[in-house]
Amino acid sequence: MSGHGSAGEPASAPPPGAAATNTTRGRLVLVPNTLDLGATPQDLAAVLPPAVLQWAARLQHWIVEDAKSARAFLKRVHEVVPLQAPLQALSIVELPRPAKGAGGAKTTTRAAAGHATGSTGAAAASQQAAHCLAPALAGHDIGLLSEAGLPAVADPGAAVVAVAHTLGVPVLALPGPSSLMLALAASGLDGQSFAFVGYLPQEAGARRERIHELEVTSRRGRQTQIFIETPYRNAALFAALLDSAAPTTRLSISVALTLPEGWSRTATIAHWRAEVHRAAPAALLPDRLPAVFLLQA
Amino acid sequence: MSGHGSAGEPASAPPPGAAATNTTRGRLVLVPNTLDLGATPQDLAAVLPPAVLQWAARLQHWIVEDAKSARAFLKRVHEVVPLQAPLQALSIVELPRPAKGAGGAKTTTRAAAGHATGSTGAAAASQQAAHCLAPALAGHDIGLLSEAGLPAVADPGAAVVAVAHTLGVPVLALPGPSSLMLALAASGLDGQSFAFVGYLPQEAGARRERIHELEVTSRRGRQTQIFIETPYRNAALFAALLDSAAPTTRLSISVALTLPEGWSRTATIAHWRAEVHRAAPAALLPDRLPAVFLLQA
Repeated sequence: MSGHGSAGEPASAPPPGAAATNTTRGRLVLVPNTLDLGATPQDLAAVLPPAVLQWAARLQHWIVEDAKSARAFLKRVHEVVPLQAPLQALSIVELPRPAKGAGGAKTTTRAAAGHATGSTGAAAASQQAAHCLAPALAGHDIGLLSEAGLPAVADPGAAVVAVAHTLGVPVLALPGPSSLMLALAASGLDGQSFAFVGYLPQEAGARRERIHELEVTSRRGRQTQIFIETPYRNAALFAALLDSAAPTTRLSISVALTLPEGWSRTATIAHWRAEVHRAAPAALLPDRLPAVFLLQA
Repeated sequence: MSGHGSAGEPASAPPPGAAATNTTRGRLVLVPNTLDLGATPQDLAAVLPPAVLQWAARLQHWIVEDAKSARAFLKRVHEVVPLQAPLQALSIVELPRPAKGAGGAKTTTRAAAGHATGSTGAAAASQQAAHCLAPALAGHDIGLLSEAGLPAVADPGAAVVAVAHTLGVPVLALPGPSSLMLALAASGLDGQSFAFVGYLPQEAGARRERIHELEVTSRRGRQTQIFIETPYRNAALFAALLDSAAPTTRLSISVALTLPEGWSRTATIAHWRAEVHRAAPAALLPDRLPAVFLLQA
């Protein structure tokens, strides 16, 4: 079923510049997660290729966003492909978390964890990342896992990947669902040019200004703008978009992608406004489901 | 194995505003493809979830980027999940192609196919797209498939998706590999803020200017810039980046993602330059493998 060299294993040739790479090094393997965080667990077969489950069942060293959810993920994997070592024997370490400063906890933490440049905090994070990668230097493959979707995309993990490159640890990204790209594909907006800009400001005035800025950027560069919000603020962001964006701007919303209750919808702001006359924003956007927002002006 | 209502089927709730949606309508189902176009065909289990193969085996109406490669894909699906109807009985229509104008054929065609605004050509494309979607209005699900990865992301298809939304045809994006997001995850560059900008100009002066522009945008917005090239020009683009970008700019290259010969590597331009002293750009970047380029200045 699993085992190295199985047909389903996406192998990886040594990267060029392998002169600098000790060939006995393990790899940093980016393992995608499902998109059902906080919802009813979905069938792994709905979103993950069998080869990814085989990889996950084989890895014995993990760097993860959250240890508890990582264990829950591995239990689900085990139901399909038995883990090579018992769960309690695995080494599971959490990603270095930058100290919490002022600002909205989770959002700030996630945003900061993605940056590896600048401050003393970043230098400390790099040092911690190097420590996490020690098993790879000893020849062990290490899995990197976030709570949903691809690690290091709109999620922490980039600092560890960056350090892997500087240490000559080969990096292997396994295929899996990306809510941002599924939302983009489902939007019908421009997929030849797009930007993901993270979270919008929470303060009403700053948010309105940012929405206008995104419309200008979209119009000037013919570029789809993609952004996200924590689920319980989705309705507030939606209301702000209806208030602030131009009637001709196209707004796409994708909710609970890959889940049974999921949907994607694109319409002009004018159309969305007409619809909200019939239903409040909160009725359209449940406060517990993840959503991706996209606009093209 | 397949069949409606199977456990693996990602169902879709009606989108809000379903007042405008005839519930007997079929869906437009965005089906991901593998990333092995032009390479040795990979095992479907390496990159696609089982539920996606079940969907593909069930759909009898298709809108595709290229009919020949779509048939080849469906033959591979059939080896894992038998098609519900014989291949020759399926309705397979190619995406409307805008008339070729001046400029580099394939690049221009792909770029233009993604845009649905403006000219008379776009209006004609919308009309053609509506024609392609007729089976959905008659209650049939329709698959949308490109030659690699997710349809409508750095690929044609967005115009058809856009028309589906205006016709009230529900759009369902199935999860699959996105080379852009795999390259971003594997880069260790900023995954909290990034832009995909398509192809760079081919003319040397214009390309140099565009590279500088991307560095400025990256620095100012702390935004990773992602771009692609047709494989046989990869080495030329790489050489131009080494010539034009700042020594401290980090350049990431991912080649042949999800394939056995694939690799991802990130280093500063200064580091890459030192390496190219030992090997020509063409030796590092084979001219037949797809690559994704990312920079952060």
